[in-house]
Amino acid sequence: MTFNRKWTLAKRPDGRVATGDFAMLTEPFTPPALDEGEVLVRNHIFAVAPTIRNWLNAGPGSYRGSIPIGGTIAGMTACEVVQSNHPDHPVGTRMVAMARWEDWSVLRPDAAPVPPFPIPADVTLIEALGLYSPNSLTAYFGLLDIGRPLAGETVVVSGAAGSVGSMVCQIAGIIGCRVIGIAGGPDKCRKLVEELGATAAIDYRNDDVPARLAELCPGGIDVFFDNVGGEQLEAAANVMADRGRIVLCGQISSYDRAGGAPGPRDMMKMVYGRIRMEGFVVGDFVGRAAVARAKLRHWADEGRLTVRIDQRAGFARLPEAFVALFDGSNDGTLLVTA
Amino acid sequence: MTFNRKWTLAKRPDGRVATGDFAMLTEPFTPPALDEGEVLVRNHIFAVAPTIRNWLNAGPGSYRGSIPIGGTIAGMTACEVVQSNHPDHPVGTRMVAMARWEDWSVLRPDAAPVPPFPIPADVTLIEALGLYSPNSLTAYFGLLDIGRPLAGETVVVSGAAGSVGSMVCQIAGIIGCRVIGIAGGPDKCRKLVEELGATAAIDYRNDDVPARLAELCPGGIDVFFDNVGGEQLEAAANVMADRGRIVLCGQISSYDRAGGAPGPRDMMKMVYGRIRMEGFVVGDFVGRAAVARAKLRHWADEGRLTVRIDQRAGFARLPEAFVALFDGSNDGTLLVTA
Repeated sequence: MTFNRKWTLAKRPDGRVATGDFAMLTEPFTPPALDEGEVLVRNHIFAVAPTIRNWLNAGPGSYRGSIPIGGTIAGMTACEVVQSNHPDHPVGTRMVAMARWEDWSVLRPDAAPVPPFPIPADVTLIEALGLYSPNSLTAYFGLLDIGRPLAGETVVVSGAAGSVGSMVCQIAGIIGCRVIGIAGGPDKCRKLVEELGATAAIDYRNDDVPARLAELCPGGIDVFFDNVGGEQLEAAANVMADRGRIVLCGQISSYDRAGGAPGPRDMMKMVYGRIRMEGFVVGDFVGRAAVARAKLRHWADEGRLTVRIDQRAGFARLPEAFVALFDGSNDGTLLVTA
Repeated sequence: MTFNRKWTLAKRPDGRVATGDFAMLTEPFTPPALDEGEVLVRNHIFAVAPTIRNWLNAGPGSYRGSIPIGGTIAGMTACEVVQSNHPDHPVGTRMVAMARWEDWSVLRPDAAPVPPFPIPADVTLIEALGLYSPNSLTAYFGLLDIGRPLAGETVVVSGAAGSVGSMVCQIAGIIGCRVIGIAGGPDKCRKLVEELGATAAIDYRNDDVPARLAELCPGGIDVFFDNVGGEQLEAAANVMADRGRIVLCGQISSYDRAGGAPGPRDMMKMVYGRIRMEGFVVGDFVGRAAVARAKLRHWADEGRLTVRIDQRAGFARLPEAFVALFDGSNDGTLLVTA
């Protein structure tokens, strides 16, 4: 007999997410009859990402909507099509898809808010969620297409030691920018400078972020790549150079706070500074993923780009890994293998 | 003997600006010896604009900086060069320049935060502050270059009955957009629909703005042109269509409030919606003013574009006219002739 393990939402987190907010079920599994356009996938590796926290809240949620109580947790996985009723995704197709925290998922690729990323034949499942992951593509397209930094410009990255942030720091360094990373704690800050190409790092737990930003960016910030929001966004907004660009990628500081993620307090600063602030989602760039992947591979082959993966084994550890994202105890991209 | 009348800042406004915040001085005037790059202008017409309110506050102010107590009020004027030590601005040059509320101003055009707009020979001084004013160019470039609306898209304009807003409504209508204007009071709202090409109007004094926006924009707002900020910006941000653009032009609702003009409360909405929010200042578009002017003239000649000018006579009435901007009792672009 086949089983399907799944992690469901036991209750809505009250502020900081806790492992007790999740419940694991194990149910007998019979492959379903697929409707047209559906595929059945086997989820092999789960990418544990902060954005999932948004979907645990009640209310409008996001492009994905809110997960109901008792609903299975959604998330990106590296998976393989095992049954198909979709001509473009035959059995054997490997993809990174917005699936769920379960062994088997029925997906409808054409209706997904984020379309699946096909995994090329020469890329492993771990690489597909590592060097070539949606997070890496998020860093690549967010920085280059939305932030559009020029060589010599100053790029500040919040959540700089995280999965997206560490890629942004490295790519910004590779294209010749001055990079300042903001992260929590001296270890992460040291890593930013020693391994991830940052010119300097700011420890938001111990430093005065506004003062340090002013000090380190005397000419202002040209591109602020924001994964954190809240006070860090506010601090950076106040130091933006004229014609600066704020890339809105994530707002992790506010995911476990009711009432959304507050914007900068002074819009007139944005008017007079001709500041552009822009959100984006990586799904829009699926069609250009191959070009980005080639670049990432090239930089990695040259030894200029590294991805640190914090790989944890065991489906049962998914909530524990997820909680680690919010206390900052992860060390790199968090992946859980089934 | 020649005199120079000037309006100075008597004290910083406490919240809403009042005529008593200003003091008029009349001083004997002797044409000064000009440094290289300086010109002496005679100010003929004063454009009374909300943005001046920002410069009356203490603190960082804006690109112009804060006006000190006792300092002369800054503002755009239609003026004429009467003495020159600048090769590009000989005596007789007519220009719209960032000058001061005084009869005679010494200006340094190359160091001005907003470069002067030369007035073509076939344009009157009133037209230079009317149809072809920096406000009209603000509307033109802000809408078309920053907002980039397509025909058929929904454009929402706050401060829609004001000098900039009424131009934005008309231009958006001319290029085939659905236009919703937000203004204060039934008279202004009627005018928006009957004269300024709006499909519908929202009276922020009497209507429930969020509810009306949701009702009138079932597909979301494609471009929000914001002159007002605060609650209206928040309401619009929540109704933006995916890939919507928020043009940050002014934030009049917050100019007389301490602590800046607050941004939208939910940055994640901006991430997921791929919203772009961008500030701009019209001074950056001086080089393209001639092209815009030709378009504005063409539309005006066709009878599709009108400018309503609220012209008031008498230098002594400048503060009174300025205060009218904030209680909404002006009827169109406020100009004061010396």
